[in-house]
Amino acid sequence: MSERRVVEAEIRVRYAETDAMGVVYHANYIVWFEVGRGEYMRQIGGDYTEYEIQGLFLPVSEVHARFIAPARYGDLVRVRTWVEEVRSRGLTFAYEVVNVENGQTLARGWTKHVCVDGEGRVRTLPRELREMLKKTR
Amino acid sequence: MSERRVVEAEIRVRYAETDAMGVVYHANYIVWFEVGRGEYMRQIGGDYTEYEIQGLFLPVSEVHARFIAPARYGDLVRVRTWVEEVRSRGLTFAYEVVNVENGQTLARGWTKHVCVDGEGRVRTLPRELREMLKKTR
Amino acid sequence: MSERRVVEAEIRVRYAETDAMGVVYHANYIVWFEVGRGEYMRQIGGDYTEYEIQGLFLPVSEVHARFIAPARYGDLVRVRTWVEEVRSRGLTFAYEVVNVENGQTLARGWTKHVCVDGEGRVRTLPRELREMLKKTR
Amino acid sequence: MSERRVVEAEIRVRYAETDAMGVVYHANYIVWFEVGRGEYMRQIGGDYTEYEIQGLFLPVSEVHARFIAPARYGDLVRVRTWVEEVRSRGLTFAYEVVNVENGQTLARGWTKHVCVDGEGRVRTLPRELREMLKKTR
Repeated sequence: MSERRVVEAEIRVRYAETDAMGVVYHANYIVWFEVGRGEYMRQIGGDYTEYEIQGLFLPVSEVHARFIAPARYGDLVRVRTWVEEVRSRGLTFAYEVVNVENGQTLARGWTKHVCVDGEGRVRTLPRELREMLKKTR
Repeated sequence: MSERRVVEAEIRVRYAETDAMGVVYHANYIVWFEVGRGEYMRQIGGDYTEYEIQGLFLPVSEVHARFIAPARYGDLVRVRTWVEEVRSRGLTFAYEVVNVENGQTLARGWTKHVCVDGEGRVRTLPRELREMLKKTR
Repeated sequence: MSERRVVEAEIRVRYAETDAMGVVYHANYIVWFEVGRGEYMRQIGGDYTEYEIQGLFLPVSEVHARFIAPARYGDLVRVRTWVEEVRSRGLTFAYEVVNVENGQTLARGWTKHVCVDGEGRVRTLPRELREMLKKTR
Repeated sequence: MSERRVVEAEIRVRYAETDAMGVVYHANYIVWFEVGRGEYMRQIGGDYTEYEIQGLFLPVSEVHARFIAPARYGDLVRVRTWVEEVRSRGLTFAYEVVNVENGQTLARGWTKHVCVDGEGRVRTLPRELREMLKKTR
């Protein structure tokens, strides 16, 4: 039975990421998801910039996030990222953000991606990417 | 039969909001949703800062967005915002982002909000806010 | 004697732009400067995207800002933008941000720009842009 | 003769930080400066949140930055931060951002800070902070 590969990225909360409620502004978790999947791609050897050079992109077509507990300036948070599903023309990443010091879950979410070329036409995921993604699950 | 009130806000796309794909970075739509509901609150007379003065907040507890077509630097976009549901301790806003020049729908989404006090305890929505929200639907 | 042309842009402060001090995070004024000069270019008819199509860019090479008084969520601010200097290969914009309701000056600053092509090579400002910029001073 | 203490922080460039020119949007360097001085404060033991608890803040009153070479998505950059000057009611931090892989200098800048209390009144820097800052130079 194959195990799911989970990749972790740590982020120190920036003052720029807080808002007038004194906590991290919700849209920044969506940016942290991007940090998480960038790290995921880097660790499986599928550096995202490589695909951009080939003229292929994986824009986010859908996002969902649930905010469970707040993060504050200076907190160290960990983004845990895994691949939820691989389709012929796209994939779904899932995320969990936790506070490193106390282990509390701060947010959970997922993003759907579609593979497109420079003109925005939907394309098949590059085969070597599909294989790298499968190996890691 | 009551009509749903839809409030509109216009936004000129900033260069800061674009990314290396040449289009608006997806998380910025979540910020635009916030611009939309700020305008909604302002138009129903429920200036959000009033509630903050009373020590009540409506943080986002959940967000969902679907990205349909890209926006680019200099585009004029319109955020259409309405209230989807009012509960005793929270509410749901829904949004549609369209390109003003060609009418194309760029994104759709919703946010759930929970009413909390300064210590993060869940509270009942202020009665006058609940009534303002009902009147406008 | 020629008058200096000053172009104004109004911005409603977003919650996303505030920080845990309860006021607008300083780097967002730099983004507002960009909003100001985008409006400046639009009003003189020199739509920035036109130059990008020609493969010419005007990246910021230097920025300076002084923060005088804070802006808060929901405030309406006005960015006043003018051209301070036009050189053969670049130009300098200057800015003043004021609170619309009470007229208070919130920030002042300037940005220097260099004209470059897609490979980052310094180029002469397009002649028609130079003429448009001169006319407006 | 005392040595200047330089504190380093590493940042992996986020897609969110790029713009339609394909490089990091200039205002994000100002955010990186904040990351640099947060790390500086943490390393000298003067955790910034401590002062906030005491009701003292060090908002940025002035910023200057010069952009020398672009950073791109996925680049690893290093922010080098040091204290340029300590005054009775404020201080100046200076920064240098370099590309870790090739050592190239990407940007240089400084920020001036004024010590204020919760009501925005200018205050004297806490003595223990002043001493920590001196020791490290």
